[in-house]
Amino acid sequence: MIFQKGHIMFHKIGTVLKLEGVMMLVLGFSMIIPLLIAILNNESDASFAFGIVIAVCIIGGIMIYRFCQPFSYKLKGRDGFFIVSLSWFSASLIGSAPFIISGEIPDFFDAFFEASSGFTTTGASILTDVEVLPRSILFWRSFTHWLGGMGIIVFITALIPAFGINGQIVANAETTGPTKSKILAKFSDNSKGVYYVYILMTGAETVLLMLGGLPLYDSLVHTFGTVGTGGMSIYNASIGHYNNIYVEIIIAIFMFLAAINFNLFYMIKKQGVLQVFRDEETKFYTSVTIGASLLIAAYNFIFDSFRDLGEKILDAFFQVISILTTTGYATYDYDIWPAFSKMILLSLFFIGGCSSSTAGGVKCVRILVGLKIVRRSISLKIHPSRITPITLNDSEINSNTAIKISNFIFTYLFVFFAGVMLISLNGFDFITNLSAAASCLGNIGPGFNLVGPTMNYSLFSWFSKFVCSMLMIIGRLELYTVMVLFSKYYWNPNRVR
Amino acid sequence: MIFQKGHIMFHKIGTVLKLEGVMMLVLGFSMIIPLLIAILNNESDASFAFGIVIAVCIIGGIMIYRFCQPFSYKLKGRDGFFIVSLSWFSASLIGSAPFIISGEIPDFFDAFFEASSGFTTTGASILTDVEVLPRSILFWRSFTHWLGGMGIIVFITALIPAFGINGQIVANAETTGPTKSKILAKFSDNSKGVYYVYILMTGAETVLLMLGGLPLYDSLVHTFGTVGTGGMSIYNASIGHYNNIYVEIIIAIFMFLAAINFNLFYMIKKQGVLQVFRDEETKFYTSVTIGASLLIAAYNFIFDSFRDLGEKILDAFFQVISILTTTGYATYDYDIWPAFSKMILLSLFFIGGCSSSTAGGVKCVRILVGLKIVRRSISLKIHPSRITPITLNDSEINSNTAIKISNFIFTYLFVFFAGVMLISLNGFDFITNLSAAASCLGNIGPGFNLVGPTMNYSLFSWFSKFVCSMLMIIGRLELYTVMVLFSKYYWNPNRVR
Repeated sequence: MIFQKGHIMFHKIGTVLKLEGVMMLVLGFSMIIPLLIAILNNESDASFAFGIVIAVCIIGGIMIYRFCQPFSYKLKGRDGFFIVSLSWFSASLIGSAPFIISGEIPDFFDAFFEASSGFTTTGASILTDVEVLPRSILFWRSFTHWLGGMGIIVFITALIPAFGINGQIVANAETTGPTKSKILAKFSDNSKGVYYVYILMTGAETVLLMLGGLPLYDSLVHTFGTVGTGGMSIYNASIGHYNNIYVEIIIAIFMFLAAINFNLFYMIKKQGVLQVFRDEETKFYTSVTIGASLLIAAYNFIFDSFRDLGEKILDAFFQVISILTTTGYATYDYDIWPAFSKMILLSLFFIGGCSSSTAGGVKCVRILVGLKIVRRSISLKIHPSRITPITLNDSEINSNTAIKISNFIFTYLFVFFAGVMLISLNGFDFITNLSAAASCLGNIGPGFNLVGPTMNYSLFSWFSKFVCSMLMIIGRLELYTVMVLFSKYYWNPNRVR
Repeated sequence: MIFQKGHIMFHKIGTVLKLEGVMMLVLGFSMIIPLLIAILNNESDASFAFGIVIAVCIIGGIMIYRFCQPFSYKLKGRDGFFIVSLSWFSASLIGSAPFIISGEIPDFFDAFFEASSGFTTTGASILTDVEVLPRSILFWRSFTHWLGGMGIIVFITALIPAFGINGQIVANAETTGPTKSKILAKFSDNSKGVYYVYILMTGAETVLLMLGGLPLYDSLVHTFGTVGTGGMSIYNASIGHYNNIYVEIIIAIFMFLAAINFNLFYMIKKQGVLQVFRDEETKFYTSVTIGASLLIAAYNFIFDSFRDLGEKILDAFFQVISILTTTGYATYDYDIWPAFSKMILLSLFFIGGCSSSTAGGVKCVRILVGLKIVRRSISLKIHPSRITPITLNDSEINSNTAIKISNFIFTYLFVFFAGVMLISLNGFDFITNLSAAASCLGNIGPGFNLVGPTMNYSLFSWFSKFVCSMLMIIGRLELYTVMVLFSKYYWNPNRVR
C-alpha cells in the first residue's frame, strides 16, 4: 500500500517535471532573440549570460523531458494549482538568470523581483537607471511581459478548463466573466481566438509605433509592455521620454484595448464592433475610464489656475488608462497631482481591467457585481421579502456566483492587507506601503511616494522585494491558485482522496 | 383618495413630531446638570446658553407633543429608518446649540461636528485647546457620549425590534450578534438587562476613578467617555494628562468591558464569568486585543533599543484597547510609533468592538465571519463539491446571514471609500484623509497625521467637517438606517405600499 502510494507519487512528480521541462525549452528558445540582439550590439556579458541560460534551458529541458517521459499520471484538477504556481515561480527564477549572470542585476532578490514583475505583467522595477542597461537585457525584460501575457491567456483559456482549477468552465464569472452571459456563452469553445487577438494586437501596435517614427526596437519593447499590460520601459522617463502626442495616444489606445475581454474582440468578426460595448463589463470599464479621466482633468485644470486644458486631459486619460489596465506606463509624475486626483487614481488600483484580458487586479466584472451587491443590500433593507436578483448582461447571476465574487473580493482585501503589514516592516510611510502592496497585487507597477512613477522599488529591503514578488504572482494567478498551496487540506493525503 | 393619502401623511408626520418632542424633553432635562455646573462655577455665558436651550427644549417639546397628540399612526418598520436617523441628526443639532449660544464654539459646522461626535460616541474634536472651555460646556460635551451610548442601547434593544429595521429580531447577526447562537438566544426578551449593565458600569468606573484620587467631576466625564466608548477628554493630553498608571489601567479595563456584548454580562448572573469568554466573538475580540498589543509592544521595544518594556506594554495595550473599542482616548502619541506598529493600529480602525455594545466600527463578529468566509473560499477551491458551513458558537450560520454580513462589509467599504474621496477635496495627505474617514465612520475619534492623537479636526474645511459628521452618524446607525433614506424606493409612494 505504501509502495503503491510512493509509486503514484513518483509518477506525479515525473509528470510535473515533464511539464517543467517543456517550459524550460520554451524559455530557452525565447531567449534566442535577446541573444541575437546582444551579439549584434557587442554586449559580451549579456551574450555570455544568454548563451549559458539558453544552453542550460534547452539541454536541461530535453534531459528532464526525456528522463521523465516514462512517468505518466493523469493530472487531476487539484494538481493544476501546484503546476501553475510552480510554472510562474520557476519561470521567474529562470528569467532572472540572465540578469544575474550578466552582472547587470547581481542581487538575487532584485533579479527575481524584476523577472517576476515581467512574467506577471506588473512592470515594477528595482532599477534606478534603466538606460545604462544593455539593449539585449532590456529587450528580455520587456519580452517577459509578452510571454507572461501569453502565459496568462494559456492560463485562462487552456489551464483553467483542463485542470478545472476553478471547478468550472472557461467562461466563469470568477476568472473570466459572467457565467451564463448570452454574449460570452458562445465562446467557451472558441478560446483559440484570443491568441489571434493577442498576436494581431502586437503586430498592429508595433507597426503603428514605427509609423510614428519609433525604431523597431523601441516599438517592439513598448508593444510588449502594452499588450501584456506590463509597463516596463527602456527609458527612465517611461513613455514621457518621447514627448510625442502620437505615441502617447497610440499606446493609450492599445493599453485600453489590451484590458478588454479578448473574447469580445473575437466576436467582432461575427457581430460587429458595437456588440463589444453592449457587454456590461466593457461599459463599466469604459465609464470608469472616461469618468475618472474627466474628473482628474477638471480638478487638475482648476487646481492649476485654468491652464493647459488639453494637456491636462491627455495626461489624465493616459494615467487613468495606464493604472486601470494595470499597465503602469507614465507620461507624467502623477505623484505631484493634488490630493483629490491622486485619490481617484489610487481607487483605480483596486479595480483593474476586464476579465479574460492580460490585465490584472480585481477585474471590472467583480467590482461591478460588488457594487450591485451594495445596491441590492440597501433595497433589501426596504423590502426584506422582495427577491432582487443581480443581473449581468440581462442574465441573472446565480447566488453561487455572487458568493464566489464576494469571496474573491474578501480574499483580495485579506491578501492586500497581509502584504501591507509585511511591507510596513520596512519602516517607510503608509502610502508607500499601501500603494506598493496594491500595485504589486494588482500587477500595476508604480505606486505613490517612494514607489511613485519617477521612483522604483530599489529602496525596499530584500524581504519586502520578495513579498512584492509573491504578491505579483499571487495576484496574477487569481489568488486561489497560489493560496490553496498554503492550506493543510491541499497537502494532507488523507483528505486528498 | 388623494385626500385620504394626505390625511395619512399628516398623521404620520404628527406621530414622528411627537417622538421628536419627547426627545427634546429628554435633552432639555439632561442639560439641567450642566446648567447647575455652569451656575456653580459662575460661567455666565454658559449658564445663559443652557438656560435658553433648556427653556426652548422643554417648552417646545411640550408644545410639539401637545399639538401632535391627536395624530396617531401606527408606525411601520420602514418609518423606523427615518425616525432613528432624524433623532441622531436633530439630537446633534440641539446638542450643538449650547456650544454656539455660549460663544465657545461659534461656528455652526464646528459645533455640529462636536455634538454629533458626542452623540455618536466618536470623540473626534475640532477644538485645539479644550482646557480653556468652561467646565459646564466640557461636562455637556462628555455627557453627550453617555446619552449617545444609552441611545445606541435603545436603538439595539428597543427600536430595531419595534420597527424591525433589519427585518429581524434583536439577536440578529447583522446588528447585534449571531442569529441562532445558543448563548444569545435566551436574551432576545431580556433586553432590559443591558441598561442595568450600562448604569452599573458607569457607577463602578466613577467610584474606582475617585478612589484613584480623581475629583468627582473628572471621574464622571471620563467615565462618560469610557462606557459610551466615546473618548472626549477635558485635557489636551487626554488620559496622558494624569500620568497615573492606576487611572490608565482602570480606564483601559472599562473601555475593554464597554465594547463587549452587554447581553453576555447579563448572563454572568446565571452562568458565571467564564461563559462570557466561551462566546466566539468575545474570544476573537480578546485575541485581537492581546495579539495586537503584544506585537506592537515587542516591535516598539526592539525599535527603541530594548528600553522600558513595561511602559511599552502598557502604552500598547492602552492604545490598542482605545482604538479597537472605538473609544479614542490617548496616553501616548502613537503617531510617532514605527510604521509597522502604526499599521497594526490602523488595521484595528476597521474592526471595532463587539456587537450589542456601545462600540462602533464593523464589529468583531462581522470581521470574524468575513475571515471564515475567506478560509472557506480557499477550501472550496480544493473541494468544490464539499459543503462547508460557517459556524459561530458551535451553531451553523445560515447562508442568508453570511450574505448579509458580506453585504454589510461591502457597504462599509463603499461608504468609507466615498468618505475618503470627499475628504480628499481638502487637499491634505492620504493618511490624514484615509484615517479621518475610517475614524469617523468607525466612531473612533483620532486618526493619523493631521488628525492624529495630539491633533484634531480643526484644520478641516466646513465641508469636510460636515462629511465627517455624516460619516459618524451613518457609522453609528449601522449604515443602512441612514443609507436607505437616499434610495428612491424609500420615498416613492407607489413602492411604499
